[in-house]
Amino acid sequence: MSFQGKKSIPRITSDRLLIRGGRIVNDDQSFYADVHVEDGLIKQIGENLIVPGGIKTIDAHGLMVLPGGVDVHTRLQMPVLGMTPADDFCQGTKAALAGGTTMILDHVFPDTGVSLLAAYEQWRERADSAACCDYSLHVDITRWHESIKEELEALVKEKGVNSFLVFMAYKDRCQCSDSQMYEIFSIIRDLGALAQVHAENGDIVEEEQKRLLELGITGPEGHVLSHPEEVEAEAVYRAVTIAKQANCPLYVTKVMSKGAADAIAQAKRRGVVVFGEPITASLGTDGSHYWSKNWAKAAAFVTSPPVNPDPTTADHLTCLLSSGDLQVTGSAHCTFTTAQKAVGKDNFALIPEGTNGIEERMSMVWEKCVASGKMDENEFVAVTSTNAAKIFNFYPRKGRVAVGSDADLVIWNPKATKIISAKTHNLLAEIHGVPRGLYDGPVHEVMVPAKPGSGAPARASCPGKISVPPVRNLHQSGFSLSGSQADDHIARRTAQKIMAPPGGRSNITSLS
Amino acid sequence: MSFQGKKSIPRITSDRLLIRGGRIVNDDQSFYADVHVEDGLIKQIGENLIVPGGIKTIDAHGLMVLPGGVDVHTRLQMPVLGMTPADDFCQGTKAALAGGTTMILDHVFPDTGVSLLAAYEQWRERADSAACCDYSLHVDITRWHESIKEELEALVKEKGVNSFLVFMAYKDRCQCSDSQMYEIFSIIRDLGALAQVHAENGDIVEEEQKRLLELGITGPEGHVLSHPEEVEAEAVYRAVTIAKQANCPLYVTKVMSKGAADAIAQAKRRGVVVFGEPITASLGTDGSHYWSKNWAKAAAFVTSPPVNPDPTTADHLTCLLSSGDLQVTGSAHCTFTTAQKAVGKDNFALIPEGTNGIEERMSMVWEKCVASGKMDENEFVAVTSTNAAKIFNFYPRKGRVAVGSDADLVIWNPKATKIISAKTHNLLAEIHGVPRGLYDGPVHEVMVPAKPGSGAPARASCPGKISVPPVRNLHQSGFSLSGSQADDHIARRTAQKIMAPPGGRSNITSLS
Amino acid sequence: MSFQGKKSIPRITSDRLLIRGGRIVNDDQSFYADVHVEDGLIKQIGENLIVPGGIKTIDAHGLMVLPGGVDVHTRLQMPVLGMTPADDFCQGTKAALAGGTTMILDHVFPDTGVSLLAAYEQWRERADSAACCDYSLHVDITRWHESIKEELEALVKEKGVNSFLVFMAYKDRCQCSDSQMYEIFSIIRDLGALAQVHAENGDIVEEEQKRLLELGITGPEGHVLSHPEEVEAEAVYRAVTIAKQANCPLYVTKVMSKGAADAIAQAKRRGVVVFGEPITASLGTDGSHYWSKNWAKAAAFVTSPPVNPDPTTADHLTCLLSSGDLQVTGSAHCTFTTAQKAVGKDNFALIPEGTNGIEERMSMVWEKCVASGKMDENEFVAVTSTNAAKIFNFYPRKGRVAVGSDADLVIWNPKATKIISAKTHNLLAEIHGVPRGLYDGPVHEVMVPAKPGSGAPARASCPGKISVPPVRNLHQSGFSLSGSQADDHIARRTAQKIMAPPGGRSNITSLS
Amino acid sequence: MSFQGKKSIPRITSDRLLIRGGRIVNDDQSFYADVHVEDGLIKQIGENLIVPGGIKTIDAHGLMVLPGGVDVHTRLQMPVLGMTPADDFCQGTKAALAGGTTMILDHVFPDTGVSLLAAYEQWRERADSAACCDYSLHVDITRWHESIKEELEALVKEKGVNSFLVFMAYKDRCQCSDSQMYEIFSIIRDLGALAQVHAENGDIVEEEQKRLLELGITGPEGHVLSHPEEVEAEAVYRAVTIAKQANCPLYVTKVMSKGAADAIAQAKRRGVVVFGEPITASLGTDGSHYWSKNWAKAAAFVTSPPVNPDPTTADHLTCLLSSGDLQVTGSAHCTFTTAQKAVGKDNFALIPEGTNGIEERMSMVWEKCVASGKMDENEFVAVTSTNAAKIFNFYPRKGRVAVGSDADLVIWNPKATKIISAKTHNLLAEIHGVPRGLYDGPVHEVMVPAKPGSGAPARASCPGKISVPPVRNLHQSGFSLSGSQADDHIARRTAQKIMAPPGGRSNITSLS
Repeated sequence: MSFQGKKSIPRITSDRLLIRGGRIVNDDQSFYADVHVEDGLIKQIGENLIVPGGIKTIDAHGLMVLPGGVDVHTRLQMPVLGMTPADDFCQGTKAALAGGTTMILDHVFPDTGVSLLAAYEQWRERADSAACCDYSLHVDITRWHESIKEELEALVKEKGVNSFLVFMAYKDRCQCSDSQMYEIFSIIRDLGALAQVHAENGDIVEEEQKRLLELGITGPEGHVLSHPEEVEAEAVYRAVTIAKQANCPLYVTKVMSKGAADAIAQAKRRGVVVFGEPITASLGTDGSHYWSKNWAKAAAFVTSPPVNPDPTTADHLTCLLSSGDLQVTGSAHCTFTTAQKAVGKDNFALIPEGTNGIEERMSMVWEKCVASGKMDENEFVAVTSTNAAKIFNFYPRKGRVAVGSDADLVIWNPKATKIISAKTHNLLAEIHGVPRGLYDGPVHEVMVPAKPGSGAPARASCPGKISVPPVRNLHQSGFSLSGSQADDHIARRTAQKIMAPPGGRSNITSLS
Repeated sequence: MSFQGKKSIPRITSDRLLIRGGRIVNDDQSFYADVHVEDGLIKQIGENLIVPGGIKTIDAHGLMVLPGGVDVHTRLQMPVLGMTPADDFCQGTKAALAGGTTMILDHVFPDTGVSLLAAYEQWRERADSAACCDYSLHVDITRWHESIKEELEALVKEKGVNSFLVFMAYKDRCQCSDSQMYEIFSIIRDLGALAQVHAENGDIVEEEQKRLLELGITGPEGHVLSHPEEVEAEAVYRAVTIAKQANCPLYVTKVMSKGAADAIAQAKRRGVVVFGEPITASLGTDGSHYWSKNWAKAAAFVTSPPVNPDPTTADHLTCLLSSGDLQVTGSAHCTFTTAQKAVGKDNFALIPEGTNGIEERMSMVWEKCVASGKMDENEFVAVTSTNAAKIFNFYPRKGRVAVGSDADLVIWNPKATKIISAKTHNLLAEIHGVPRGLYDGPVHEVMVPAKPGSGAPARASCPGKISVPPVRNLHQSGFSLSGSQADDHIARRTAQKIMAPPGGRSNITSLS
Repeated sequence: MSFQGKKSIPRITSDRLLIRGGRIVNDDQSFYADVHVEDGLIKQIGENLIVPGGIKTIDAHGLMVLPGGVDVHTRLQMPVLGMTPADDFCQGTKAALAGGTTMILDHVFPDTGVSLLAAYEQWRERADSAACCDYSLHVDITRWHESIKEELEALVKEKGVNSFLVFMAYKDRCQCSDSQMYEIFSIIRDLGALAQVHAENGDIVEEEQKRLLELGITGPEGHVLSHPEEVEAEAVYRAVTIAKQANCPLYVTKVMSKGAADAIAQAKRRGVVVFGEPITASLGTDGSHYWSKNWAKAAAFVTSPPVNPDPTTADHLTCLLSSGDLQVTGSAHCTFTTAQKAVGKDNFALIPEGTNGIEERMSMVWEKCVASGKMDENEFVAVTSTNAAKIFNFYPRKGRVAVGSDADLVIWNPKATKIISAKTHNLLAEIHGVPRGLYDGPVHEVMVPAKPGSGAPARASCPGKISVPPVRNLHQSGFSLSGSQADDHIARRTAQKIMAPPGGRSNITSLS
Repeated sequence: MSFQGKKSIPRITSDRLLIRGGRIVNDDQSFYADVHVEDGLIKQIGENLIVPGGIKTIDAHGLMVLPGGVDVHTRLQMPVLGMTPADDFCQGTKAALAGGTTMILDHVFPDTGVSLLAAYEQWRERADSAACCDYSLHVDITRWHESIKEELEALVKEKGVNSFLVFMAYKDRCQCSDSQMYEIFSIIRDLGALAQVHAENGDIVEEEQKRLLELGITGPEGHVLSHPEEVEAEAVYRAVTIAKQANCPLYVTKVMSKGAADAIAQAKRRGVVVFGEPITASLGTDGSHYWSKNWAKAAAFVTSPPVNPDPTTADHLTCLLSSGDLQVTGSAHCTFTTAQKAVGKDNFALIPEGTNGIEERMSMVWEKCVASGKMDENEFVAVTSTNAAKIFNFYPRKGRVAVGSDADLVIWNPKATKIISAKTHNLLAEIHGVPRGLYDGPVHEVMVPAKPGSGAPARASCPGKISVPPVRNLHQSGFSLSGSQADDHIARRTAQKIMAPPGGRSNITSLS
């Protein structure tokens, strides 16, 4: 349910909604019940609820009712070389809603000379005026300075920020030294907040970039060649080590490779408190596209760490997401038009970084994890919503269908398989859009229970864009599920995982 | 609150109880609220509850209110060489309650010539007449036969059994071949139940036993030497392989070694659905005692797989329990008196197997995992109660403090550190008891609120024991936290884990 | 140099040969020297050797002189369902020589009712009359019986056999139980011999075969589906465990998967003495061909354990071969014609097992390991020759270019890249040959200097085949280096490994 | 044979020596033969050698003749805070010889303001005038500057240096950044030399030192607490990553922990060319002594990375040394007197770093690896001598008993177990010596045959020390094999490894 919808409901239908007959799916169990929503909160859950007359009713028989998705990583206002992303808070959050995500966590990235606090206020202002769904903010620490402790303290205590990101890459821009990381982690630990890290060894990346450019490699393949998997895994290993020494919980953004994921899994085994965030792109595609002869297509995949060329990566990441070694999923949505990407047409190191994924995230996880038998529906809810709410401390207000929780609900159709095409996308309102093309993989039908009247007016509130109908340039492509997979030739097992996982029926015997 | 406390509640208030001011701790969150219990169920949770007049009230300010512990593995009627354990359903469940455990899952072990169904009925009968807390039953498959499919089907569909154990050890008694395991797992999968496995390579164990006896080694050290860690790990690896092929979820009982635990953790990483159960003994002690010069003490540790001699085992298992690679904790409580153990005084292979732990389980996990900073209180509830309820399919009736759930509650005092000594034990009513000695480690005060009507009569039904006051022979010792640990000489870190893990405060921003 | 070249040498110079100016490559170092051969032994190595007049001289400037290759695994007389392989000792050893291999180790496989000793004598007889190169024999233990200890002892002490293979698969034919393995390993240990193992879990394989046939899968893909990687890795893990308990060194034949190789590598880390043998097929191709629509092609790949479908397998195995975790290379050469394979046309479980590789082995290892930069030339010699000689105890007679060693030498041209085609193959003299096709990958020119007197007569003894010119049916294909590799799209690094590995020049300073 | 024995040989026979009847042990095989030495070289090996009359003869029946040991890491002139080590080239090399080591590789450590080349010349000068055995030099790169490439090139091409060390620790002194490492590794690669690395994360170490000192921890335990294992493993992981990117072979000095060793082993599995050097201290003792109440004893163990407190470390390192994951052994011998160590009596960070081990190295490896059954005698020679000679490019001049090799021979008595006590040490000529105490573990008798002419003059040149008899202060202790080991209570297996490993007898059959 979007906020605009939320806002408008009271006016039209007062504020009441009854969702009937659905299967409530939380991270710990599923059950059939009606849900009674009022004033943006869940008021009752149960059978045969007594509800006020004239309440708006949605029939959810045969459908699932999930807590709204939480996208833990977006960059809808990320400034790059003076440019801003094609999908801003307005377009981005609409796309989020279209994909079943009702809350995003965006990254505040302070520009040169701007304090963390000032940047935070900028982000609040932009988001408040444009976002169509709930949001929260991570704050990126882009430079070390003496008064950083005071800034962080103010953000935590006055603004309620509880997660801060440091960069191990982007040398001479925002890269942190190990000593600085140790000190920042110590501050974060004392504040009871969470340390996030962009994990890549910036020193090596820079050396490799130099070497490749000297060799005359200037295209997007240079991007992935200068960001090899080892460089990502190394940084994760180092971050984990520093976090353990500083006694600070750690959160690794954008887990893109098997090496990085394994470094996280092994650290957990040694007792380190560490969380890992794979993203839509790392779960859904691979890095072979960097060698596409279509420059625009190749450039569309430029992000850091890069999408990994190893075609078995996605399968490995979904295994670790299923086993609990990785906990949450984000999109790292940060899109630039081909024209913007083309700033780096002669030098891959200048291509603005970022891929799409805010709308596709939940469908992708369902397809890759649930449809494949690796997860059940409850685990799906955990990795798309509940775990994020717990880690970032807004559970059970978000992440759970429960009385008293926010009425962020997604009505999910697990049976339907629908092609997501331009027609169902809500992303772009401009003709010359983001270099993202036809996604033609299988995706399930999703439905975000609209609050009555939430449609047109919400879109109308996107300033200056509403007059252009949503049309996409189909010749520009984003990522898609690669058509043929490494294991396509292996006959599918009939049922990789039993439908009714451990249990069946219980033989509890009470004394009474 | 001790069992005695429980006893008095029903007498006074029949069936109503109000627990005031406690901190409710579930596996997903903690919060302060009152709990109103009626007719054995939780009727209300909240602040300022409206309750009936004359309700019995317990003040829980400063204390935690947890869902009652679930001990996933007991053997209170395990027949060994015609002997029965010293702690039967009556004594065993009293000890369980004294330790904060309100439900046990006991193993039905059919004697030669008894069908699974008949054995199940025997267990039900004994348990119903003697158990002082709720129970459920696993059924052990002790021999392969043609009609096993029908037997399992009847147990699942008519009796509600949902977990069955096969043995990979005990050659010429109940050992299963790989083919038989594959077929049994396939049946269990089709029934939607869970396959449990006692994982040790029985062929190797037998060969080693022969070799050691030939070498003249007859004492308890022969037990651990003939059950090396590799033999346990090998069996886990094989069971996991067979379960994966058969598409059946797997549950490994009694995870006693790093090798076995790692085999489970690695299998999860490859996408296998597998659960692992460390027990009180593997979490709390080590196998150095097998070399004790006191035969009775050494024999008291004889169990299979054995308690591992590697002193770093417990630390590793608690790490994996914290990281989610292992999920539940049991006691594998199965105690024999020194006289009974002495059947094997000239041949370690004849010593009846089993250790204690039903009462110490929750305290041990708290001490090893929470007090050491590896877990928070919510994770503690998960591994001692909630995960078991989910896996064995009686969640949220058990495993959660929620409206509608069974009123199995433990009032836990996280601040108190109390010596568990013979005086606080409820285990034994006989003079010449189990060879279990003074446990002198720190343990917290626990309280178990009563189920209506469950008190006095149940205890009265303990035949021939209730009149004898609980006295223990302090010169006979069970396991204890070994006095000096491998890392004692390392200065303790001030705080291994932050007190308020990820989060702190949230900066969710709504638009309204 | 091909075998034909070899033929002419003995005729001219009887038994003396001087190889001039080559680079001698042993496993520990390389150096330039002449080699003087006489009476089948290396008589002198050095510069400016004084040699008898009229000695035959070969100019090896610019070429390498290696110890002859040792193929640790062939089955040139393997009986399958009453059939014998298409390449017998005569054809097989010719092919070996053509590929640079001067010694093979063939497996004696006793047919039903034949004693190990009698089978050994059969093999000796056949090999002595037909083999064109040196050979040695492993003996397969195909059935357990009471007098096995005496048989093994006789083979070791009277016949000089020092390696015996047990099968963990082929249920109801030659599969060994864990107890039997333990006892056989104990006997082998006491005899100072080496235990080899065919590692697959035969129980699971049989169950999977039944399941797949019930599902109607009868083609060669059923073979690989019923022999999944896990089943191979599991058996390796188990064999390693049993060998460790029995204190017996272990040798795993036919390492075909990453899982199996990793199980070996990890066991070494735990202190187990274990050797692993990847083969030409596992190093050079992958199992995608089992899904070929050409039945004959698919069937040509049927071997156990199967060639693995994971395309990254070969790269992993070559890494472990380079790092020393795997030590030797074999071919497991055992070929059947399409007509023979077709015995299993309606049931994959009946297809005679085996692939080719005896001729391609050394070229494949050079291409995959040396040309790719993973090994230097000395390591190449180690894994193709020296390590085998050490493990099977005929070092330094074989496996080293040294004074006193056998004159089994290969003149290797590291610069040449030549197409191996039907014209250079020496394998088959029949029209309807083995289903093995055009190998069109890059291969280096090799030359095998003759043993005195070994040439023409030996070949002449190939009954009824020598008069037929070698012609092959090019429409039937064996395996080839797959044209496109998983990482083809990744730009090649300019130099993955420095050409002159550690060293350069030394600054040793002596006191004198 | 002790050094004193050696002294007398040259005087009698000038330069000829016959060693009779010994068992020659190389890394690839063992055999019985006589050795004829002349002019410092091995002239003949064989039976019934024809030797000049009057040749000095040593009877080696029942003894082993090994290539002299190579200690890959010593610091006999390491300047620390203006102090020089207690054991200089004279004393240190005498101790080396007493322990069976005939060649050392010392580290050139340029002081502030001294160029690499000038430092190299200083070291040459000191060593030439004092060393009693052969030596070679590594050069440490203590500071990055523009002309480093030229300096390295001169050292390689003019001086024959082929290994250079960079430091990842010692912040603000000689610590290298990742970028600098990448560039230095690239230079080293181009020069065909080897990159060595001192692997510890200096940033974290410094932060931990600050933290601990602030906590009031000033004693030697602060040293190990500020250098946790993770910080060593992290640096190894990073170094390996950078070396792989730069395509440069890597050598990790002083492998002190399981974590570091595992990082090396895993990198090898991924195809990285990396060598690891455990040292006498990490193989022979553990870090529990840092908590000794005797400050001098605790301080004697201060070295970086520290000796690890985990008592299972040594066992793990010897396993990896046996499996080939670690290749060489050094001593890192660098000793300071208690008075010198006491510079850091109020601040552990100021304690001069270094432990002894030059004399104990070979005995320790024999005891831990061969006596325990992990290695055979050939593997012992590999890790104490041959591998070092190969890696540093002076094989087969050193590291092999072969005709033409240097006559650096050790006559080793594998049967004798002798207590090394102060009386057999050759280390110190001063009363107030190095804080190194009674080594009372079992050690084997060794004998080092002399190099012609190397004896008396060299020793005579030890200024001012030779007249003082070797006496040690027994109250000051170095490390010793800890009296009780973690696995002492486990009954020893009768034979962990067969005596005659794979082989036994061969059944090779030749055609002739």
